[in-house]
Parts: sequence; structure tokens; C-alpha cells
Amino acid sequence: MVVIGGSASQKLAAEIATYLDDKLALIETKKFPDGERYIRINEKINSDEQVIVVQSTGYPQDENILELLFILDTLEDMNIKEIILISPYLGYSRQERRFKDTECISAKTISKLIESRNIKSLITVNLHEDSIRNFYEKPVYNLSAMPAIVKYLKTHQSNIIKNKPVILAPDKGALNFAKDIAIDLDTEYDYLEKVRLSPEKVETKTKNIDVTNKDVIIIDDIISTGGTIVNAIKILHKQKAKDITVICVHPVFVNDAILKIYAAGAKDIISTNTLKSDVSSISLAELIAEKIKLIIN
Amino acid sequence: MVVIGGSASQKLAAEIATYLDDKLALIETKKFPDGERYIRINEKINSDEQVIVVQSTGYPQDENILELLFILDTLEDMNIKEIILISPYLGYSRQERRFKDTECISAKTISKLIESRNIKSLITVNLHEDSIRNFYEKPVYNLSAMPAIVKYLKTHQSNIIKNKPVILAPDKGALNFAKDIAIDLDTEYDYLEKVRLSPEKVETKTKNIDVTNKDVIIIDDIISTGGTIVNAIKILHKQKAKDITVICVHPVFVNDAILKIYAAGAKDIISTNTLKSDVSSISLAELIAEKIKLIIN
Repeated sequence: MVVIGGSASQKLAAEIATYLDDKLALIETKKFPDGERYIRINEKINSDEQVIVVQSTGYPQDENILELLFILDTLEDMNIKEIILISPYLGYSRQERRFKDTECISAKTISKLIESRNIKSLITVNLHEDSIRNFYEKPVYNLSAMPAIVKYLKTHQSNIIKNKPVILAPDKGALNFAKDIAIDLDTEYDYLEKVRLSPEKVETKTKNIDVTNKDVIIIDDIISTGGTIVNAIKILHKQKAKDITVICVHPVFVNDAILKIYAAGAKDIISTNTLKSDVSSISLAELIAEKIKLIIN
Repeated sequence: MVVIGGSASQKLAAEIATYLDDKLALIETKKFPDGERYIRINEKINSDEQVIVVQSTGYPQDENILELLFILDTLEDMNIKEIILISPYLGYSRQERRFKDTECISAKTISKLIESRNIKSLITVNLHEDSIRNFYEKPVYNLSAMPAIVKYLKTHQSNIIKNKPVILAPDKGALNFAKDIAIDLDTEYDYLEKVRLSPEKVETKTKNIDVTNKDVIIIDDIISTGGTIVNAIKILHKQKAKDITVICVHPVFVNDAILKIYAAGAKDIISTNTLKSDVSSISLAELIAEKIKLIIN
């Protein structure tokens, strides 16, 4: 078995190779002065060998997608038959339906690009909408990062979990993440809900739990501009919560999102490494490696 | 007939629509904060209507390629059957063969992306290697910009051509461009050749013509970093040439290439509008529109 990492996921690829006790392939990837990407796979790979390609497709998403296609096409030219693609963050997954007619369903275009390549299956993590899997004929394994997040908190952040923090979803859509983590940490969970107090007045607050004097962990799948999280922190402060930790799976973090969240009063921000960021401390390498073992056996 | 222009070729699309006396479609194209492109075609198009999509795929090439695919997939969802794609500059055309094993032939990947879409044919301009057409099953029309360049010089730059300038290719590969233009302008043409004077010494100079006191037009298909052209200008100065005008089809112009060429002593730089640049004065709209008329009739 050989593991190949694209530019977007070099360290994760190396970690997965370590967990699988497999070879990390050398790959030359660079840009020409005019901006065009050059790819060469500097590794002798037998055509019947199992190849794992790891490439997230976050920002710069179009470059990462093209690089991925270049890698897959080169492997095809090398007659490699058995390829599993790991794309922990699948770009364009938030454009998976049409809100107005004649809009592009970009997630479908991405699925066509990936699926038409010679891969056997795709492993990804917490797809923003699970329905995206319907764009694919080939198996798509949509892993949940929650077990890895819980394991990380128990192993590395016992100070955060010792006071039984409330696990909070910033909206109902993220409630299942909060629930999964809370059950494993044996603590409470809740979500923020908009309540209409009068025709003019809307208030957002915790649905069930009084967080006064309690520590809180906010959990969401993607943090992008950070607006939702900053808002949630303000509400929690108003409700007199104590320490607030922000955790997410996909650290998209547009522009100064990390700074904004810290400035709003978060004690810490922690994310997984589906994308590179300043706070990508939780490695999903073991989670992904275990899934690969299951698939190929 | 409806003409759709992508971000890379909006003005050219408008000009082509004017020449064809056809409607320029409204298309909404923007980026979300995380960098993902959004596309919507804001035009009612009948499914049997002839659609012309215009999108160059120069820098940022990966974004322009993805945008093109998004447009084509949206048209497919709209059941549009008759699409001609105009991509005047086809990105990755300089990576069309393997120099070392296990290199990516990027031009082949691009051909797969384009060809697997619902287009009937592709019109492009001065492909760096005509052999790229072999990557396609569908018709690829590889137009030469030379007639448009000659027409522009005769109409708008009579001062440049009045002294019968020598048309010079910076290397033998570009000789046919020089020849085509020289024949139409009824003037001389030549190319720069490397001559080995001794085991240690190589000199580059005009192959046949003494350019002393003569005006020169340097012609090339692509100017990228500008290094070749700057070198050519130095050589021409050494040979006491008078006014030097630089003309190219594809103005890639990496970083400060335009500045470097002017600083080297070019009197002017002129290019076609296959790509946007400070010097893209020669419009290929008429050339392309005439080809479209031929194809659809």
C-alpha cells in the first residue's frame, strides 16, 4: 500500500501512512511562473498496488481540485487500479441544491469530476449535507469526527472537560454533533434557539439549559466567517456562562475569523485537521486509517 | 443564438455577440467569502437554442477552468443541446507531453474535463502545440491570429509598418508566425539562431538578414516571463536595429514582464485579447465570429 498526499494534506497523508505502517510516496508538486501546476509522482508503484490519495479541497479550492485530478490522471497513466480517495473536506459541499432556477449545483460538478476518475471509493468527513453522497454512484464514506474530538478532549484537554461543560450547538442543525459529544463525555447538551418575544423583537438563547456559571463547549461542523460563533459567544456571555471553548470539524476560517472569535471572548478554539489552520490540533489520521483498513479487508 | 461570457472573457464575449448580431446572456458569477465560486445563468434559453460559451483559461487558470465547468454543467441542467465553446487561450497547453516518466500530462486532464461536457466543438487560437487536438475526439478548431494581427497593423498602426519592418521570430519555433505576417505585409522575415563560435562561445543573432538601421517587429505566440523577448531585444540593439515592436498572440505576461520588455527598449508591445492585459489591443472577435458562422451553417 502507498499513500500519496496532495499539497493540501501533506501532513495528514504522512500521519495516515504511519498509522497504516505504509509507505508515503514522494510526489513533486510545484507551480510554473505562469501559475500552472506541475505534478510528478516520484515513486515506483506496481499497477496492482493499493494507493491512498489524500487531498482536501478547501481554499484555494479550485487549485486543490485540479491538483487532485492531475494526481489521479497520472496514477491512471501508471495503470494503478486500486485507489481510495481521502478528501476530508470536500469543497463546494454547501452548494448542493438550487435555491433559484438556473443556479449551478457546484457540488454536483465536483462529484462528476471526482467520480469520473479511476477511484474505487471516497472517504470524507462530516459532509455539510449527507445528501451529497447521492451525487455519487461509487461508495462515499462520510465519517463523523466526533469520536476523534472526544478522544482528543479526554487525552489532551482534561482541564476543559473536568467541569462537565455544556456542549452547545449554535443552531439546531448542529445539535447532533453536540449530542454525540455530550453522551461520550457524560455531560449536558443544548442548542441556541431564536425566540420571538414580540412582533418586533427576537431573542436568541439556549433552548433548555441555564448556562449561568457553567463552562460551555460550542461545537459546529464548519466555521467560515465566524459570525455565527461570535454571536453565540455574545449570547452565552449575556447568560453569564464561564469558560467558552469553540470546537469545529472543518476550520475554513475566512480572513480574520480566528481573531474575531478569540476577541469575542472564546477561551480556546480547537479544530480537526481536515484543513490546515492555526488551530488544527485534532488529527483525524487514526479515524481515517481505521476506516481504510475496514474497506480494504 | 446566445453568447455567454465567463469572468475571463467578458468583453470578448460581448464583442463576439455584436459581430454575430446575437444576444449576450446575463450571467451571475461571484465568489463566496470562503473562495467558492457561485454561478447562475440569468437568462431564459430555449433548449434547442445555439449557445456560444466564451472563456479563456489563463491565470488564474484553475478558477477559470472550474468556472467554465460550472457554466457548462448549468447549461446541461437547462437541457441546452447545442454548445460551441470558445477558449481562445487554453491553459496547460505547454504541458502536453512527458519529459520524465510519471509526470502529469496536464493538457490531457484539461481535455478530459472539457470534452466530457456537452459541447459540440471547441474553438481556440494558436495552440502552443497543435498536437493537443489529438487529446480530443470532438472537433477542435485551432485558429491562427495572424490575419487579425496583420489587419490590425494595416488599420491602426500604419506608422509601424510604413518602413517595411523585418518580422522576426525569437526562435525557429515561431518562424511560421513571422512568415505569415511578412507575406501579408510584403516585407522580410527571419529568426534568431544560436551559433557556436567556439567550444566555449555561443552567439545568438539573426539567421539571414542584417537588421542594421531597420525597424523590427518581434512576433511570438506566448510571452510569459518575457525573458526570451528581452534577450531578443538586446541582440537586436547590438545589431543596431532601429524601432522594435513586440507582438504576441497570448499575453500571459508573468509579474513585471511588460515592464521588463519596455525597459529593454521595445518601442511598443501589442497583443491580441485571448487574455486580458495592459496591451491586448487586437480583438479576435471578428475572426472568431466568422469561424462560428462557418461552423453553424
